[in-house]
Amino acid sequence: MEITFLGTSSGVPTRSRNVSSVALRLPQKSEIWLFDCGEGTQHQLLRSDLKSSQIRRIFITHMHGDHIFGLMGLLASTGLAGAKGQVDIYGPPELKDYLNACVRYSHTHFASRVQVHPVQPGVVFENDQFTVTCNPLKHRIPAYGYAVTEKDRPGRFDVEKAKALGIPPGPIYGDLKKGETVTLEDGRQVSGKDLCEPDEPGRKFVYCTDTVFTENAVDLAADADVLIHEATFAHQDAEMAFERLHSTSTMAAQVALAAPVKQLIMTHFSPRYAPGNPIRLNNLLEEAQAIFPNTCLAHDFMVYEIPRHRD
Amino acid sequence: MEITFLGTSSGVPTRSRNVSSVALRLPQKSEIWLFDCGEGTQHQLLRSDLKSSQIRRIFITHMHGDHIFGLMGLLASTGLAGAKGQVDIYGPPELKDYLNACVRYSHTHFASRVQVHPVQPGVVFENDQFTVTCNPLKHRIPAYGYAVTEKDRPGRFDVEKAKALGIPPGPIYGDLKKGETVTLEDGRQVSGKDLCEPDEPGRKFVYCTDTVFTENAVDLAADADVLIHEATFAHQDAEMAFERLHSTSTMAAQVALAAPVKQLIMTHFSPRYAPGNPIRLNNLLEEAQAIFPNTCLAHDFMVYEIPRHRD
Ligand SMILES: [Zn+2]
Ligand SMILES: [Zn+2]
Repeated sequence: MEITFLGTSSGVPTRSRNVSSVALRLPQKSEIWLFDCGEGTQHQLLRSDLKSSQIRRIFITHMHGDHIFGLMGLLASTGLAGAKGQVDIYGPPELKDYLNACVRYSHTHFASRVQVHPVQPGVVFENDQFTVTCNPLKHRIPAYGYAVTEKDRPGRFDVEKAKALGIPPGPIYGDLKKGETVTLEDGRQVSGKDLCEPDEPGRKFVYCTDTVFTENAVDLAADADVLIHEATFAHQDAEMAFERLHSTSTMAAQVALAAPVKQLIMTHFSPRYAPGNPIRLNNLLEEAQAIFPNTCLAHDFMVYEIPRHRD
Repeated sequence: MEITFLGTSSGVPTRSRNVSSVALRLPQKSEIWLFDCGEGTQHQLLRSDLKSSQIRRIFITHMHGDHIFGLMGLLASTGLAGAKGQVDIYGPPELKDYLNACVRYSHTHFASRVQVHPVQPGVVFENDQFTVTCNPLKHRIPAYGYAVTEKDRPGRFDVEKAKALGIPPGPIYGDLKKGETVTLEDGRQVSGKDLCEPDEPGRKFVYCTDTVFTENAVDLAADADVLIHEATFAHQDAEMAFERLHSTSTMAAQVALAAPVKQLIMTHFSPRYAPGNPIRLNNLLEEAQAIFPNTCLAHDFMVYEIPRHRD
């Protein structure tokens, strides 16, 4: 699971940071899931190592323009991935109406079959490899955080060990691989579990934006490998954070600490922390690290590989 | 009058060309008018020498996404120019409904006062310096070409000559500047016209996209200094041009020749003319120049100053 940040600025693009979008490349698959799609996301994809044609699912946190204004352009430009070129989009209930209105006024024909799924708290998607859940955050308009939980991988079946025990290869290996107990022709009983390495625990990716500090983010991020959390403001600008229902660096760190998570990546920075402002993004980093040391700052095109849980 | 091309690709952005937008900087004013606003126009402005805060008017040719999907983001990001930060937008009747829908779904508060004016063929704007007219083009959906005509500048009043004739400075100079004939105290009659340099003819800028060849473009472009005309396809791809109601290089040149205009700048190129395709953009240029020599190809961030008509 590989994360690529496509936009890390809040509200407006700057020369070095675009508005929100994060790509998640799935393991062993040429499939990408996108989280938010601010204006210019398709342009950022062109400049990245990702192929926008591989986008299979798009998860939208909330309806503010800096999180959705790139969606129409992306969908119009790209024949997207999956069976019959389908893309599934998950987001607040108004998302479907918004896209329908845009399609109608702009006479757009999507290059892919687009299906929009309104989300509710809980499971929003599940297949044999992943479960995606969402939880409401605390913003000026309804906003949802998303958690992608990889299912545990069954441990590798040890063929050599099976052969050494004198078990002849055949359909019986299939049962043993599933961990079942089988009776051999000579009467011996063998448990597949003894022939399999332990399961490899799945990984967990969590994306929380836009929001002020909320226990719902803590719950969603429980035991995550990576938490991407917005940190629009520095700690000393907390008043603005409360007023606009955004987070400070220290709120992001509090969520990471309470969850807890393994790694916090902060993003969605206010463009105010630019030369001329005595506060710099490094100050946000230091503030967060004082609470949760394993914190870093996202930047556009930053790639983060979530490590597997091999023993 | 200075033109800056912000996007010169048709349909989709490429790594080197964004989708449609052209900026026109007005003379002696820190005021910019924008023609079309594809996705990423605000990003292109950040990378140009133009300040998006100076945009005062935006003219939209038609409702296809590659001409309008940057509008919401631009309006949301920028406190625009003019009295009380107002921006006036001109375009097809559906434009207002589209923007209203986007504003509603995305909970956007514009940084400026935005007024949308549906256009009809004829004059769409006029002040003491400029007249803007539009004419319907021939595209899959209603599309309008725009002409900006600068009014003639009154010739400079020759104060030295007036003094040499023994005309005493005073309110009389005002009448003479307007070209009126006045009677001096000593009975002499003096015509202001003899004391003024000849009027400087205004310039004319014309923007025609998206369209297949149409006489309406020829009419609109009559005697223009600069015609910006789409040339999505090469001459040998004319079948696609007729099918999709776009222009070939040779159609653009025919319009320039028939109008006639002083300079043709072609834009809105299909991304197909890239390495791998035996046809290159230089072929489109040669095809057009065979018909209308004074032709060039636009590229992103190209700046073209329309020369003044000083004698
Ligand atoms: Zn927001
Ligand atoms: Zn079009």
